[in-house]
Amino acid sequence: MTRKELISEIRKKSSFLCVGLDTDINKIPRHLLKSPDPVFEFNKAIIDSTADSCIAYKPNLAFYEILGPAGLESLQKTLDYIPREIFKIGDGKRGDIGNTGKYYAEALFNFYGFDAATVVPYMGKDSVEPFFAFKEKWTILLALTSNTGASDFQQCELMTGEKLFEHVISESRSWAGADQLMYVIGATRADLFSRVRILAPETFLLVPGIGAQGGDLESVTRHGINKDVGLIVNASRSILYASEGNDFHVAAKHEAASLREKMKFLLENIF
Amino acid sequence: MTRKELISEIRKKSSFLCVGLDTDINKIPRHLLKSPDPVFEFNKAIIDSTADSCIAYKPNLAFYEILGPAGLESLQKTLDYIPREIFKIGDGKRGDIGNTGKYYAEALFNFYGFDAATVVPYMGKDSVEPFFAFKEKWTILLALTSNTGASDFQQCELMTGEKLFEHVISESRSWAGADQLMYVIGATRADLFSRVRILAPETFLLVPGIGAQGGDLESVTRHGINKDVGLIVNASRSILYASEGNDFHVAAKHEAASLREKMKFLLENIF
Repeated sequence: MTRKELISEIRKKSSFLCVGLDTDINKIPRHLLKSPDPVFEFNKAIIDSTADSCIAYKPNLAFYEILGPAGLESLQKTLDYIPREIFKIGDGKRGDIGNTGKYYAEALFNFYGFDAATVVPYMGKDSVEPFFAFKEKWTILLALTSNTGASDFQQCELMTGEKLFEHVISESRSWAGADQLMYVIGATRADLFSRVRILAPETFLLVPGIGAQGGDLESVTRHGINKDVGLIVNASRSILYASEGNDFHVAAKHEAASLREKMKFLLENIF
Repeated sequence: MTRKELISEIRKKSSFLCVGLDTDINKIPRHLLKSPDPVFEFNKAIIDSTADSCIAYKPNLAFYEILGPAGLESLQKTLDYIPREIFKIGDGKRGDIGNTGKYYAEALFNFYGFDAATVVPYMGKDSVEPFFAFKEKWTILLALTSNTGASDFQQCELMTGEKLFEHVISESRSWAGADQLMYVIGATRADLFSRVRILAPETFLLVPGIGAQGGDLESVTRHGINKDVGLIVNASRSILYASEGNDFHVAAKHEAASLREKMKFLLENIF
């Protein structure tokens, strides 16, 4: 999906919501476990209920890998089921050099058909480049994550005066354009969004940490929005597990629609 | 596998060789492609030819993931085939928080039965801790990798005077003991091994970059060895693809045995 198409979907739906398909076999309603593929059945119901409200889905690969090869079959079926116009993010936080990196990218982009993949910058440019080689696809580099541990290394101050995550952004901006590169910036760091926007004014930001992790949507939007919206805000647990019962998809629909309503309001009132 | 058992295997075999099972479907001999599971057939032959010379196997997960769910079945069969006393490292460079991290660890340690997993430190302590929760298993944290891009971030100088990779080591040493934590230190950085040994005198180091990447075994051993040997040195391509023909396993056997001979000599002559 091109940048233009992504922006057009966001404008059309008045939404920049990403639904994180972190489908936990231990958390889905019990009645689904009777089905031959409970994870896919759950995802199918979630997609049916939320596709009107969101512009992206983001399966976190750990929830599929825990189930072995069968889990990856559920993932494959899920990807095939997501409507074509919705942006598909493979959240595996991969990164490796040479053929290894190339094969990670090829698995995510070609085998599963993701539009984007999350990548860790720690190993440097030559561990990210294999992902850029896929010109129609997106690389979403971890910059500043939403967890407590983000302060351990990402916020370390360098000799140059920059923090590590700022250096990751300023350095990597020369590696690819804003039509191929995004950053992960956690919603719990809304105070730092203005700084990120100075370093990367045009780049799309994938923002986890809304909902269960406590990030504030309005604050993130105010500080992070740019002329193309430039934000993809993810919610996972607050939508997927809005209800533990058989009505889980109804509750999910309501939760996603409510987030989309807030986004619509913010889009109309900020720009 | 406990630290004591690992050291005992190293002493028994006079070897600290790890064979990287980076089995590339595009590089294995053509005649294997007729088999129903070419990757497993190749691995089986490599394991049969090298098990006497090495103390560890390290499949890089990218080479299996590229093949989708079927590739992970080849991985599973490979893991089941590796002799019990040989240390099994899942090289996926994972890392994530909470349940996500826990599920990555559970997939690698319990589903596939790896003894150890490589983990990226970028997200900080709470993204590594889920791996430490498996007390009988090992977490191998990327510190200083063997690729050119290692200079982009890992070698950044911090305000404290430390380089980032040094800070990763000094910080993470308090997260777990030397019976659960190892570091990846690239063989191409032999000049920095003495520095690593000051920061982490007892910790095992997993050392890639010997062979195809040009690292020097003698230099790594001289600077990196400790009283328990403390080194696991990996070679992948130079062993796996020592011959492109039907005799690939004969060539691999010879290459692995020759590396083990060098290691035996170094062990006898350094300590």
